[in-house]
Amino acid sequence: MQTVSEAQKIEYTTELNVYIEDFFTLQIKKAAEISPYYEALWQEISRLIHAGGKRLRPRLTILAYQALGGNDVKSILPIAVAQEFIHLAMLIHDDIIDRDDVRYGVDNISGSFKKIYKQYVSNEQDRKHYADSAAILAGDLMLSSAYQLIAEANVDAQTILEVQRIFGRGIFEVVGGEFIDTESAFRELGDIRSEAVARYKTASYTFMVPMTVGALLAGASKADQAYIKEFAENIGIAFQLQDDIIGVFGNEAVTGKSTTGDIREGKRTFMIEQFYELASEDQSQTFHEFFGNQNVTANDAENVRSLLVESGAKQKTELAIAAYEKRARAAIENVELAEAAKNMLEEFILIATKRVK
Amino acid sequence: MQTVSEAQKIEYTTELNVYIEDFFTLQIKKAAEISPYYEALWQEISRLIHAGGKRLRPRLTILAYQALGGNDVKSILPIAVAQEFIHLAMLIHDDIIDRDDVRYGVDNISGSFKKIYKQYVSNEQDRKHYADSAAILAGDLMLSSAYQLIAEANVDAQTILEVQRIFGRGIFEVVGGEFIDTESAFRELGDIRSEAVARYKTASYTFMVPMTVGALLAGASKADQAYIKEFAENIGIAFQLQDDIIGVFGNEAVTGKSTTGDIREGKRTFMIEQFYELASEDQSQTFHEFFGNQNVTANDAENVRSLLVESGAKQKTELAIAAYEKRARAAIENVELAEAAKNMLEEFILIATKRVK
Repeated sequence: MQTVSEAQKIEYTTELNVYIEDFFTLQIKKAAEISPYYEALWQEISRLIHAGGKRLRPRLTILAYQALGGNDVKSILPIAVAQEFIHLAMLIHDDIIDRDDVRYGVDNISGSFKKIYKQYVSNEQDRKHYADSAAILAGDLMLSSAYQLIAEANVDAQTILEVQRIFGRGIFEVVGGEFIDTESAFRELGDIRSEAVARYKTASYTFMVPMTVGALLAGASKADQAYIKEFAENIGIAFQLQDDIIGVFGNEAVTGKSTTGDIREGKRTFMIEQFYELASEDQSQTFHEFFGNQNVTANDAENVRSLLVESGAKQKTELAIAAYEKRARAAIENVELAEAAKNMLEEFILIATKRVK
Repeated sequence: MQTVSEAQKIEYTTELNVYIEDFFTLQIKKAAEISPYYEALWQEISRLIHAGGKRLRPRLTILAYQALGGNDVKSILPIAVAQEFIHLAMLIHDDIIDRDDVRYGVDNISGSFKKIYKQYVSNEQDRKHYADSAAILAGDLMLSSAYQLIAEANVDAQTILEVQRIFGRGIFEVVGGEFIDTESAFRELGDIRSEAVARYKTASYTFMVPMTVGALLAGASKADQAYIKEFAENIGIAFQLQDDIIGVFGNEAVTGKSTTGDIREGKRTFMIEQFYELASEDQSQTFHEFFGNQNVTANDAENVRSLLVESGAKQKTELAIAAYEKRARAAIENVELAEAAKNMLEEFILIATKRVK
């Protein structure tokens, strides 16, 4: 098994981005044959995908592929990129649902078309509606394109269909997680807990699908695929819980994101659920004054943080992360891996669970 | 080549519906494992697809398949059903874009969730937003499911990937047509004509994709596939132009649809474009009083119809339909077909172009 040098990793990032760029160049050209307006829609999607994204999912596919002994990354690039496309599709639709206009620090599809339509539609609500309509269609295009890309990989047709099956299951789960998350904003979902949302909204299509697919493409046995999947699921949930902590306790200068946003929004994460279980009546009462309050000050936010620490909610979340991490390690120990592969996965565990941004 | 008896046709309709029902039973069960709320979303989609739809696209796949000599309809049923799923996906998203709550005479996804959410969300605009959000996700599920179904067909993997490629191109085109159509509601699209919308929004994924796929699955040569595609494209445009005529001149008692709706809405169809080219200044002026006027009376609508006849716009549309029909026949004459197959296609031409509902 080959060791992957840093230089090769960088090369794949470039290749991923070149692949994405070539894809959009071609689609924009094809769209122009239908209409310059359709061309403009594709250009907006291209602009957005080039504006950001850490290409986490494609990298995870390549990581699992290499860790399990795959050595022809070029042949599977389209499948790696497809993971990014489905992610973008979900983000575009998610932003409509969350009524967000910004993504990666730039206008998303809705945000951009709101500006484009300004000269045509004077009524603000109508303008938003048409901009959202463009975004609905843009998401559909990325969803369909993801499947198309998978089919383009230079691997045998039977394997491609198996990849699509895993991929489809991921979409089924992420949409489920997204739907529960959306409904939880306005209705009491009883037994639904943030852990389920973390599992289905994040762990499934961000970790399990890309890594399982990578293992499959490397020719891993069914058993090893299952272990990789279990590894990815546990790391994925740990990643999400860590994300929840960073959302409240992170260093704004490092994360580039507001750390009062989640408090202002009253976002019900795993850590918040722990708080409700652990807090005294007094603590809960103080908490409610600030949590979900649109006008929280920096001081109020600091109070919330203290309560999360004092109640033990933060610690319990950290313990949960450690437990998921342990389960992930246990799963991967069942797989026979070269030393280099073990190091790759170990490095990844640290990035996912110890990160501060 | 076999002649297809009426009994067999009916059997396939039943099989299509059984296949759809089985699919949803399974998905609803899987969704329930994630959450009862997710289960409810799947149940709403199931309710909608069972409420209506003529299964036109699956039938066209089977029609082309049989006409080109295919004789194992069962093996291709999932691919036929996939045509219906992508159609439903587009309808669900189209209804959000058109702000419609009703489809097949029943609540669509948005319409239904508006009612479900009534007890949770008091603000009407928020309620609409969340209901639309559910519909966005429902459309995504159907789009992904369509690709999944194609992969389930009992044909070789290489052919499945080829079907997906044709299918993806259809989605690319229908989204383009839909986007142009959406933008044409509020901006002057210059060179964009209704014919392009008819081609991309209707002909492509309603006729060309299902029939080309059917021919491919029957093992037709590349040349024959191309002829079938040309046939389907021309019939598809003829079908849409006929639809535009029915929308204004149809018999409400027969069509079940209002014949003043298109006039009230000011829908810019091919026939209306012909009117603008042919009409005198006087005719145009009178026309503008009523066309696109939300308050048109039955009398006003009758005036509009008279103007469309007197100007020659209706006749020119009928001539265009005849021309497309002729081109369709010419295309199909290049294909060697059994007598029974010719009769099937001839019957289809009549249904598509001479229909009154």
